[in-house]
Amino acid sequence: MEKRLIPLFNRVLVEKIVPPSKINADILLREKSSKLNSGKVVDVGPGIHGKDGKLLHVAVKEGDTVLFPEYGGTEVKLDHKEYYLYRDDNILGKLHD
Amino acid sequence: MEKRLIPLFNRVLVEKIVPPSKINADILLREKSSKLNSGKVVDVGPGIHGKDGKLLHVAVKEGDTVLFPEYGGTEVKLDHKEYYLYRDDNILGKLHD
Amino acid sequence: MEKRLIPLFNRVLVEKIVPPSKINADILLREKSSKLNSGKVVDVGPGIHGKDGKLLHVAVKEGDTVLFPEYGGTEVKLDHKEYYLYRDDNILGKLHD
Amino acid sequence: MEKRLIPLFNRVLVEKIVPPSKINADILLREKSSKLNSGKVVDVGPGIHGKDGKLLHVAVKEGDTVLFPEYGGTEVKLDHKEYYLYRDDNILGKLHD
Amino acid sequence: MEKRLIPLFNRVLVEKIVPPSKINADILLREKSSKLNSGKVVDVGPGIHGKDGKLLHVAVKEGDTVLFPEYGGTEVKLDHKEYYLYRDDNILGKLHD
Amino acid sequence: MEKRLIPLFNRVLVEKIVPPSKINADILLREKSSKLNSGKVVDVGPGIHGKDGKLLHVAVKEGDTVLFPEYGGTEVKLDHKEYYLYRDDNILGKLHD
Amino acid sequence: MEKRLIPLFNRVLVEKIVPPSKINADILLREKSSKLNSGKVVDVGPGIHGKDGKLLHVAVKEGDTVLFPEYGGTEVKLDHKEYYLYRDDNILGKLHD
Repeated sequence: MEKRLIPLFNRVLVEKIVPPSKINADILLREKSSKLNSGKVVDVGPGIHGKDGKLLHVAVKEGDTVLFPEYGGTEVKLDHKEYYLYRDDNILGKLHD
Repeated sequence: MEKRLIPLFNRVLVEKIVPPSKINADILLREKSSKLNSGKVVDVGPGIHGKDGKLLHVAVKEGDTVLFPEYGGTEVKLDHKEYYLYRDDNILGKLHD
Repeated sequence: MEKRLIPLFNRVLVEKIVPPSKINADILLREKSSKLNSGKVVDVGPGIHGKDGKLLHVAVKEGDTVLFPEYGGTEVKLDHKEYYLYRDDNILGKLHD
Repeated sequence: MEKRLIPLFNRVLVEKIVPPSKINADILLREKSSKLNSGKVVDVGPGIHGKDGKLLHVAVKEGDTVLFPEYGGTEVKLDHKEYYLYRDDNILGKLHD
Repeated sequence: MEKRLIPLFNRVLVEKIVPPSKINADILLREKSSKLNSGKVVDVGPGIHGKDGKLLHVAVKEGDTVLFPEYGGTEVKLDHKEYYLYRDDNILGKLHD
Repeated sequence: MEKRLIPLFNRVLVEKIVPPSKINADILLREKSSKLNSGKVVDVGPGIHGKDGKLLHVAVKEGDTVLFPEYGGTEVKLDHKEYYLYRDDNILGKLHD
Repeated sequence: MEKRLIPLFNRVLVEKIVPPSKINADILLREKSSKLNSGKVVDVGPGIHGKDGKLLHVAVKEGDTVLFPEYGGTEVKLDHKEYYLYRDDNILGKLHD
C-alpha cells in the first residue's frame, strides 16, 4: 500500500526531476550561486489565512513543474521515492515548455 | 488514574510512532538532513486567533497520523509514555496509507 | 495581611507544585531536554487585545493545573511562597487526572 | 516649583518603594534570577493605538502599587527624587495587601 | 535668511536646553545609566498612519519641553544652532514646572 | 522548444542588459558601493495580497527596462540565456530614455 | 538623449547639493556623528500601500530640498550626474530658507 503525505498549511510536496546533465545545465544555475532544482508538484496543502483572515490557496497545483532553490525545503522519503516539502512562497516559478 | 494533558492555543500533543527500522527508512529522511518523525495525534488545543480576530482551529485532529521534524517540539512524559508538543504550523503533513 | 499580586495583560501567576520525585519523573521530562514544571494557577491578568482590537481573555483560569517550561517565566516570592509569572501563550497545557 | 514629568504613549512613571530589608526579601526575588522592584505609580501616559486604531489606555493608574523588573526601565531624577519610566506592558502586576 | 527644517513623518525637531549644572543634576540621570536630555520642541512632522490607516498626529507640539534619551536621535546643526531629530515614540515625556 | 519560467507571487524575471562599458559607466555605480544592473522585464508573477487582503499587482510589466541591485536576486539560466528573479520591491526603478 | 530613472514604491531620487564648505558647516553635522546631506528631489515613486490597503503617496515632491543621512541610500550615476535613491521614511525633513 502506497504511503501518501498531504502537506499542511501552504506547504507543497514536490518530486524532484533529475534531468540528464545536458538539460540540467539549462535550468540549473551557474556554479557561482546556489543550485536550483526543478520538480513535479505531487500534492499541496489547503493554504494559509491572509491578513484579512480569508484563506489564500496555494499558488501551484498538482502536476505543475516548478523551479525551487536548493535550500529552504525539507527532504522526505516515501516508499523509496525522494520528495521535498516547500512553503509555496519559497517556490520561484512554474516551468513551461 | 491516567494523567491527561490538554494542549493550549494551537499546540498538538503527538505520540511518537517508533516504526521498525525498515519502514523507518521509508519515512525518515536521508542522513544528510535532520530526522523526521511520524506519530499519532492524541489531543489538540482550541486554536489561535487569526489576523482578523476569528478563531483558527488546529489543522489536525485526534487520531491523525502526522509527520513532524526532529526539532521545534517539547518532549513530555505522561504515565511513562513519551509525547511531543508541537505548534500546528510546525507539523509538516498528514500521512495516509 | 497577605500580599496579593494581580498579573497584568496576559500574564498568569502560578504556584509551582513540587511533586514527590516519583511522580516528578512522570511529568518532568527526560534529562536530554529542558525540565517541565507543573503548578496551580493562582491569578490571571485581564488578557490582551487581539489583532482586531477585541480583548482576548487569558486561556487558563484560577485553580487550573498547568504544565509550563523551565524558562520564560519570572520568579516572584510573596509571603515566603514561590510563584511564577508566565505569559499565557508560554503555558503548554492543562493537566487533568 | 516642583518639576513634573508627564509620560508619553504607554509609559508609566513609578516611584520606587525601598522597603526595609525584611519585606524586601518578601517581594524581591531569589538571588538566582534578576531582582524585582515594587513602586507607586506617579503618572501615566495617554496610551497607544491598538491594531484596530483605537486608543488603548494604560493598564495601571496613579496610586497603584506595582511590581516591575530590574531591567527595561529608564531611571529619571526629578527634584532629587528617583523615578522609573516603564512601558506598561513591562510592568508585571499590581500589588495589593 | 534663517534655515528651517520641517521634520517628516513622526519626527520631532528639538533644541537642547543646556541647563546650568545644578538643575542639570535634577533632570539628568544618575551616572550609572545613560544621560537624559531636556529640550524645547521647535517643529514636528505630520505624523504617521496607524494600523487602521488613519493619520496619527505627533504626540508633542511646538513649544513643549520634553525629556529625551541620549541615544536614538540625529544631531542637526542649522544656522550654528544644535538640534536633535527624534521619532516621537522615542521621546519619554513632557516636562512641566 | 523554448523553456518559459512564470514567476510566482511578486517575483519579476529580468534579462540582464550587458551594456558596452562606456554606457555601463553611466548607469553603474561608482566603485565604492555595490554594482547596479539594468535589464529588460521578461515576465512577472500575479502579485501578492496586501494587508487588507486585496491582490497587489507587480509594480513593473513585461518590456520595462529596470534598474536592480547586484544582490538580492536569484540567477536562472534558461535555454542558455541568463535571467534574474527579483521580488518587485527590490527593483529600484524604471529606466526611460 | 537623457536617461531618466523613475523610482518604484516609496523611493525618492535625490540629486545631492554639494554646498560650499561654509554652508556645508551649517547643515552638516558635527564630526562626532555621521554626516548629513542635503539635496533636491528629482523624482518620486507612486508610494506604498498602508496597513489598510490604501495607497500612501510619497511624503516629498519634485523640487523639494531635503535632508538625508549619509547611510541607507543607493548611489546611482545617470548621464554623469550623481543621484541617491532613498525610501521616503529615511528622509529626515524638508529644508526651507
